[in-house]
Amino acid sequence: MSLSANRFISRPIVATIHTDAFRHNLGRIRELAPESKIWSVVKAKAYGHSLEAAFKGLESTDGFALLDLADAQWLRDHGWEGRILLLEGLFSQQELERVIRLRCDLVVHSEKQVVWLESLKNYSGHPINIFLKLNSGMNRLGFRPAEYRTAFHRLHAAGYHLHHMTHFANADQVERSPSVGEQMECFNQTTEGLEAPSSLANSAAILWHRNALGDWIRPGILLYGVSPTGVHADIVRSEFQAVMSLRSEIIDIQNLKKGDYVGYGGRYEAPEDMRIGVIAGGYADGYPRHAEDGTPVWVDAADTQGDGVICPIVGRVSMDMLTIDLREAPNAKIGSVVELWGNEVPVDDVAQMSGTIGYELICALAQRVPVLTD
Amino acid sequence: MSLSANRFISRPIVATIHTDAFRHNLGRIRELAPESKIWSVVKAKAYGHSLEAAFKGLESTDGFALLDLADAQWLRDHGWEGRILLLEGLFSQQELERVIRLRCDLVVHSEKQVVWLESLKNYSGHPINIFLKLNSGMNRLGFRPAEYRTAFHRLHAAGYHLHHMTHFANADQVERSPSVGEQMECFNQTTEGLEAPSSLANSAAILWHRNALGDWIRPGILLYGVSPTGVHADIVRSEFQAVMSLRSEIIDIQNLKKGDYVGYGGRYEAPEDMRIGVIAGGYADGYPRHAEDGTPVWVDAADTQGDGVICPIVGRVSMDMLTIDLREAPNAKIGSVVELWGNEVPVDDVAQMSGTIGYELICALAQRVPVLTD
Repeated sequence: MSLSANRFISRPIVATIHTDAFRHNLGRIRELAPESKIWSVVKAKAYGHSLEAAFKGLESTDGFALLDLADAQWLRDHGWEGRILLLEGLFSQQELERVIRLRCDLVVHSEKQVVWLESLKNYSGHPINIFLKLNSGMNRLGFRPAEYRTAFHRLHAAGYHLHHMTHFANADQVERSPSVGEQMECFNQTTEGLEAPSSLANSAAILWHRNALGDWIRPGILLYGVSPTGVHADIVRSEFQAVMSLRSEIIDIQNLKKGDYVGYGGRYEAPEDMRIGVIAGGYADGYPRHAEDGTPVWVDAADTQGDGVICPIVGRVSMDMLTIDLREAPNAKIGSVVELWGNEVPVDDVAQMSGTIGYELICALAQRVPVLTD
Repeated sequence: MSLSANRFISRPIVATIHTDAFRHNLGRIRELAPESKIWSVVKAKAYGHSLEAAFKGLESTDGFALLDLADAQWLRDHGWEGRILLLEGLFSQQELERVIRLRCDLVVHSEKQVVWLESLKNYSGHPINIFLKLNSGMNRLGFRPAEYRTAFHRLHAAGYHLHHMTHFANADQVERSPSVGEQMECFNQTTEGLEAPSSLANSAAILWHRNALGDWIRPGILLYGVSPTGVHADIVRSEFQAVMSLRSEIIDIQNLKKGDYVGYGGRYEAPEDMRIGVIAGGYADGYPRHAEDGTPVWVDAADTQGDGVICPIVGRVSMDMLTIDLREAPNAKIGSVVELWGNEVPVDDVAQMSGTIGYELICALAQRVPVLTD
């Protein structure tokens, strides 16, 4: 198979979004939190997967959570009738009219947003759902406990339909402060006596803090089949599936002599005579420049014996290309298909070899990489 | 000034491309290499600046060098009559017809491409310009010396108009192998007696290897006002100007108590009671997640005393937000404008604090960030 043969693209790099994997992952999350409703988090172009593909794969969700009004508009234009949550709420007072027209729910995290909402006069539609955000220790967005109850009462008095919300800083790890336990204690104390549905758990809490789910959970990274901890082994037992596959081809082969250097800075020195493959894929496609020698790339079975084979990166990733050691793939040739991440190479593994987490890599998929949906 | 007030965007992050800086930088390069013609390298959406802005700012170049036929098509559609070089040449034989129609020059780096070009029959147009790529030691793309002369003669016999080309692995640093000197020696030996114009220098060679320019230079990163070495000080004397400014706003402020933690993993612990600002900008916008505490962010003068002030990052960069220490900006408030990189904060400095180079950051600017041109 050639990625470019049947397509009008020149460089043979392409990302494929597997909508069946979206459906599977959403189903797994429902099994893990059967009592909760699900906000499917699709901000940042659905973590690089495209809103279109996410909508197709996640249409049985209870709601979509995102940041940009333009994305909310897109969902309404394409027939989504369910709920939409704006995760950072209003960025300006002028947005309120459009929020109402698009029937969005709003996170409220600042006093300024409360004032904007109180200014709404002569509104007679369905009460607007507010997710009031408590800063229970993460210190990013949200009201401090001392101010939270006041904000709650003001918005309640103004006729809004309130929910409690907070976000965990360390649901994916132990021995870091604040812990989920500490944040839950803060949340419970602050909201005591204020009857309202709650929204608490992110992906990591859904997996590992089943007593901290709330009425609306907010899975993000798990929907995409990527590990909240950055370690793929942590989600293998839970049977999540990679949604994105990033594939390319070998566009050239070099026959190195022992002692030859590869790429910028000459980072890799050939320990013996060997073949390397040049792949159409570099950091301007979203592949991490940090990837160390040894980062796995999978070469397709058609050009190897049997099941395909992992060929490690050798030499620094450049803007449009990367280079792999072909000693384990003697039949690989120009045109051989490779997977940079996906089912064969978990994006978590690439991220680990690059000092980051899968979140960053999938979100960084570049605009110039065509995205196909299957 | 508010970035969002007069625009129909919700999140207040925006990249501005200064086309005057493009003109200035191109002029500086002409001064540095007055005998050479200039291929302005605009691959990867003009290193994240958008092809549209680059075309506007660089229209006095001698040619544009890029990868994707779609970008060549775009330039022709928008009136560019000058030369266009496809830096990786043909990805398939089928592209040849379109290459001819778009009047592109071609890099040839593999035997397969020679075969495709030899297959062209009954072509009676203007001779196609070929830049034959020698692998003089970088071991990425190009012919080994032993094969180079054969390829040259074959293409010459087939009626193509040939140029010699190679690419330096270490023009930006000393004491790495192969050196520019070693590569030049290889180039001179291999091309001896084969009369043809040459294309050698990338940005670093234009600055620091003035004996290795060639007839066509290929500046990339310098056009964008970013340092080829990753160190901003290395280009300050040469007076290049930043072309991209990435700006956003403070969307919330937290009043921390001494000992409070900030963000995921609780990386930062407040050493005293202090204010932090939450900025609409995270790694899904292209800001590096690797950025360490202390990475500079500039807060606009309108909200500080005098000239604006640098407020360092505190806490891990998250997907849509980052947090800065506001102790030096007591008047900063929600809505204050910040610069993440540009004229006030060289992108090189952000890259250095993130373990990478400016190239990666500008190319990684995310699709969701609106790009304006001034």
